[in-house]
Amino acid sequence: MNSTKTSSDLLEYVYDPVRNRLQSSVEMLSELVSQQPGILSELLDHVLDATGKLIRPTVVLLASNFHSNDDCDVETLAAAVELLHMATLIHDDTVDSSEVRRGKATVSSLWGPKRAVLLGDYVFATSAKFVCDTENVRVIRRFAETAMELSSGELREIESAYSKDLTRNQYLDRIYRKTASLFTTAAESGAMVVGSPEHVIKALKDYGYNLGMAFQIVDDVLDFDGKQAEVGKPVGNDLTQGILTMPAILALEQYPVNNPISALCEDPSDEKKLKTALEMIHNHSFIQDSIEIAREYSSKALDSIRNIELNRSRQSLEVLAEYVVDRRF
Amino acid sequence: MNSTKTSSDLLEYVYDPVRNRLQSSVEMLSELVSQQPGILSELLDHVLDATGKLIRPTVVLLASNFHSNDDCDVETLAAAVELLHMATLIHDDTVDSSEVRRGKATVSSLWGPKRAVLLGDYVFATSAKFVCDTENVRVIRRFAETAMELSSGELREIESAYSKDLTRNQYLDRIYRKTASLFTTAAESGAMVVGSPEHVIKALKDYGYNLGMAFQIVDDVLDFDGKQAEVGKPVGNDLTQGILTMPAILALEQYPVNNPISALCEDPSDEKKLKTALEMIHNHSFIQDSIEIAREYSSKALDSIRNIELNRSRQSLEVLAEYVVDRRF
Repeated sequence: MNSTKTSSDLLEYVYDPVRNRLQSSVEMLSELVSQQPGILSELLDHVLDATGKLIRPTVVLLASNFHSNDDCDVETLAAAVELLHMATLIHDDTVDSSEVRRGKATVSSLWGPKRAVLLGDYVFATSAKFVCDTENVRVIRRFAETAMELSSGELREIESAYSKDLTRNQYLDRIYRKTASLFTTAAESGAMVVGSPEHVIKALKDYGYNLGMAFQIVDDVLDFDGKQAEVGKPVGNDLTQGILTMPAILALEQYPVNNPISALCEDPSDEKKLKTALEMIHNHSFIQDSIEIAREYSSKALDSIRNIELNRSRQSLEVLAEYVVDRRF
Repeated sequence: MNSTKTSSDLLEYVYDPVRNRLQSSVEMLSELVSQQPGILSELLDHVLDATGKLIRPTVVLLASNFHSNDDCDVETLAAAVELLHMATLIHDDTVDSSEVRRGKATVSSLWGPKRAVLLGDYVFATSAKFVCDTENVRVIRRFAETAMELSSGELREIESAYSKDLTRNQYLDRIYRKTASLFTTAAESGAMVVGSPEHVIKALKDYGYNLGMAFQIVDDVLDFDGKQAEVGKPVGNDLTQGILTMPAILALEQYPVNNPISALCEDPSDEKKLKTALEMIHNHSFIQDSIEIAREYSSKALDSIRNIELNRSRQSLEVLAEYVVDRRF
């Protein structure tokens, strides 16, 4: 309880310098709902009502604060980043047949996979339209490349399910694609769109990459360790679906012979093997070791921005890097 | 057989002024396959191997020939249009659980809906990346808007299934979204990207719209009337899925009382009612009347471009407008 409160306080500190602009971005998303006829409005309302912690748009807005440019509509870019994230969530939930996301029933579980696929497409395209408002082709291209990485990352996750030979590098490449790519783009494009100098863009790009890697490793840890009510989805979900993440990879690295996780990979439907594999993760230090690896990425995120202007937004980015490894949901 | 040959000859005439550049666009798509690792290469190879008649990229290339601009990479734009079309087909086949497309098994039937959703996303994003190479934000924005129209059109098709109250205007709006929007964008963006004057862009945009409307009405007619081997999918498929198209709408307009199509809408699982509804379509002039409506759109397409330069590409566009209503597959 105490740690939840602290991590919530950290987040409030992070939002502070961009609170009003973040609110404007959220209002743009709400307006999207009211403009739609029929089922599209209903579907959008459902997903937008479950808006999460808005970390990605917050990163966009903070990253835009290292160069002065009053004419630039960064709020629309921030909304575009959240839309791209949401489109991915809608399709991922459909592909994974997930029932719950952010504590709410998913679109695919309520309205079926057909509507979920098409709604995801619509949200994806809307994100592209929003980013066009920046009139900045370099930013738009980064969005397109990120969307390619997001889908290919999820495809690799499916292909590597129950693969006991998955290496740490393959795992890191996968989480870059599925998560860190969009964090990178959020930070980089926030800096690009206001016309920051190249060294600032590079610093924020590196920050976004490291923040995203830390974020996903912690996310994967919370899948084993979090409380269902806080995480908003069932605990142990990844391993149940054969998706090996950092704790499982550390276990396979350290115990290459007679490993219960290898045994599960060879016999995915054996519930007893699943239970033994989960016990192995919990009875060793793999979870703590994974958090340490996330903490290293978080440190690298801080290092990346240590030479840019020290203003209130940089302090927020620093606290955010701390938050992503300390959070409990 | 004779009519097939003629319609094939028409198409060869259409391709002629852009044959080499169309070949370059197709090669760009082939290169995409060779650049990918693992399953993505296999999936892309399957869909790209089934490339259709390439009408949309042909329209892009022809539409770019009314203004001289040697520096412009129209081939990449043409490839982007085909990719956007393919992404839609991949998702539509997934949503509709279609087994066959262009005479080949669909990705979703061979590799399952999960991979098909993600492959569609990847192709969609690749299309966006290709269009960024134009560096033309107006063109890129039209792509994003078209992608919104494509997905919302397909969503409306699902929502209006078995709706006996579907009006002709609702049908026309739906086929605009699902087909004519991309034809419009193909023609318009081909003209935009080379820097054509606004009146030429407008003329080609109108041409694309009318060509697309004619194309889809004929496509819907072929669903009733074509031969399975030629059309590449089962005949009567739309009505079987409760999708009412022009022939059915004409039938409902002319026989508002005791209509077998209304009866089918009220009792979708009754195979006898499906048979009676299909017989009604075939035993009246609804198919011929629908083709007449398509022919009116085709005439409007010709009218749209009658004031632009009369060159070989305009002759191709004129013959293409003839082809789309005369084709048999």
